[in-house]
Amino acid sequence: MPRYKMLMSYDGTPFGGWQIQPNVLSIQECLEKAISTLLQTKIQVIGSGRTDAGVHARGQVAHFSTSTPISKSFISKLHLLLPHEIAILDLSLVPETFHARFHALLKTYHYHVDYGPFLSPFKRRFCTHLNYQLDFDLLNAALPYFIGTHNFSSFANQRKAPFEPIKTIYAIELKKEEHKTFRLEFTGNGFLYKMVRNIVGTLIYIARKKISLKEIPPLFEAKNRRCTPPPAPPQGLFLHSVTYPQSSH
Amino acid sequence: MPRYKMLMSYDGTPFGGWQIQPNVLSIQECLEKAISTLLQTKIQVIGSGRTDAGVHARGQVAHFSTSTPISKSFISKLHLLLPHEIAILDLSLVPETFHARFHALLKTYHYHVDYGPFLSPFKRRFCTHLNYQLDFDLLNAALPYFIGTHNFSSFANQRKAPFEPIKTIYAIELKKEEHKTFRLEFTGNGFLYKMVRNIVGTLIYIARKKISLKEIPPLFEAKNRRCTPPPAPPQGLFLHSVTYPQSSH
Repeated sequence: MPRYKMLMSYDGTPFGGWQIQPNVLSIQECLEKAISTLLQTKIQVIGSGRTDAGVHARGQVAHFSTSTPISKSFISKLHLLLPHEIAILDLSLVPETFHARFHALLKTYHYHVDYGPFLSPFKRRFCTHLNYQLDFDLLNAALPYFIGTHNFSSFANQRKAPFEPIKTIYAIELKKEEHKTFRLEFTGNGFLYKMVRNIVGTLIYIARKKISLKEIPPLFEAKNRRCTPPPAPPQGLFLHSVTYPQSSH
Repeated sequence: MPRYKMLMSYDGTPFGGWQIQPNVLSIQECLEKAISTLLQTKIQVIGSGRTDAGVHARGQVAHFSTSTPISKSFISKLHLLLPHEIAILDLSLVPETFHARFHALLKTYHYHVDYGPFLSPFKRRFCTHLNYQLDFDLLNAALPYFIGTHNFSSFANQRKAPFEPIKTIYAIELKKEEHKTFRLEFTGNGFLYKMVRNIVGTLIYIARKKISLKEIPPLFEAKNRRCTPPPAPPQGLFLHSVTYPQSSH
C-alpha cells in the first residue's frame, strides 16, 4: 500500500502530548481523525517518537499508508480539519518500507530559555523563564559530560520494557541570542522519556551553582532518576528535526 | 504628587481591549488593580490611547500618580500580580505635568501578515493569515494615498464627540520579511478608532485587486465608513511605540 511521509509543526500547549491516550487531546489523535475523515477510511499515523505534554515540534515526522489517492489539495483540506496548533509542512510518497520511528537516524531538540528580568508576553508559550543568575562558563563546561555514548538511566523518567538506556548524543550547543535569551541544541541518535528536559534541568542547576561539575559523573553512575535535579518545564522544548538515511525516502 | 511613566508590552489576545469596560477584562483594569494592591491606595492609570480587543502592544505608555514611595522591586512585584500577558518594561519618574495621552507626539503601529499556504502555529496569535494572491506593486502604489494630512472619517469606526477626523500619517512602510510574511508600519500624530485596521483592510483589497487605486480618493471624499472594505482582523496589529517631546520626560 502506498506510504506517505508527513512533516509537521505544532504548538504543543493545548495537547497532552503526541501519543493517543485516554481523556486528553493528543496530536496523533487529531491527525488520525482528520486524515481518516478526509480519506474516508481508518488511518493509523506513526510518529518518529513521542513528544510530552506541552512540548512543541518544528519538524516532527510521521508516516501513514493508504491506497486511496491523495489529491493536490490534501494538505489544505487537512488544515481545515486540524486544530490551528498543528500545521502540515510537507507530504511525500516514500518507499513502502519507510518507517518514521525505526528509520530515524538523528533527532535534534532545541530548548529555549529567557533569563531576563521578566518573560516577554510574546514568547511566553515557547520559552522557559529563569529568573536566576546563570554562570555560562560553567554551563559550557558541563556540556562535554553529556556528549558521547552513555547510560542515561539517571536522566530517563520512565522505564518501559524494552528499556535501552544507552544513547549517543553527538552534539550539545549553547547558542546565546539577543535580549537575554539562549537555546540549547541537542543532536543524538535517540532520546529517552523526558531525557532532554532532565539534562536541561541538571545543566541549569550547574549554571546556578547548585551542583558542581564534579558531581556529574556520579549522577550518571547512580543510574537513578531520583538523584538528578527536576526536569526543565516543557514549554521551552521543541523537537526541531528528524533525520533519515537518504536511501529511505 | 509624583508622577510615573510606565512602558509596557502586552499580548492582547485574552483582553477586551485597553480601556476599562463592563463585563470584559481590560489591560487598564488589570494594571489599576495590581498597582492599587501594591501601593494600598486607589490608583488611576492613563494610557497613551486605547487598543482594541485582541490588539497587542510592544511599547504602550501610561502614567499614574502616587505619593507612596515606589521601591526598587516594584516592577517584579507587579509582575506577580499581573496576568502573564502583560509585562512592564520600564518605570520612570516624570514631571507632574506629563500626560501619556495629551503629550503623545507620534504613534507607530505595525501590522503583521502571513500570506503563505498556512499560518505557522508559532505565529498564529500575532499575525493575520491571508490565503490570497497579493500584488505588492499595487500595495506599494496605494500607500502614498494614505500618507499626509487627510480627513479619515471613512476609516473611523465610531464617532465619539469630540470627533476630530483630520489626522496626519507621516509614513507607511511595507517591509517584506522571510517565509512569506510582511509588515506594514504606520507612523502618525494620532489614529481614530479602528483606523489602522480599516486602512489595512482597504490596502488588502487593493492588493487583491478587489478595488483599484483610482477608487481611493472617492473613498476619502465619501467620509463614510460604510463605503470602505472591512477592517483587517485585530491579531496582526501591534501598538509598536509612542513618542513624546524630549522636554516632557
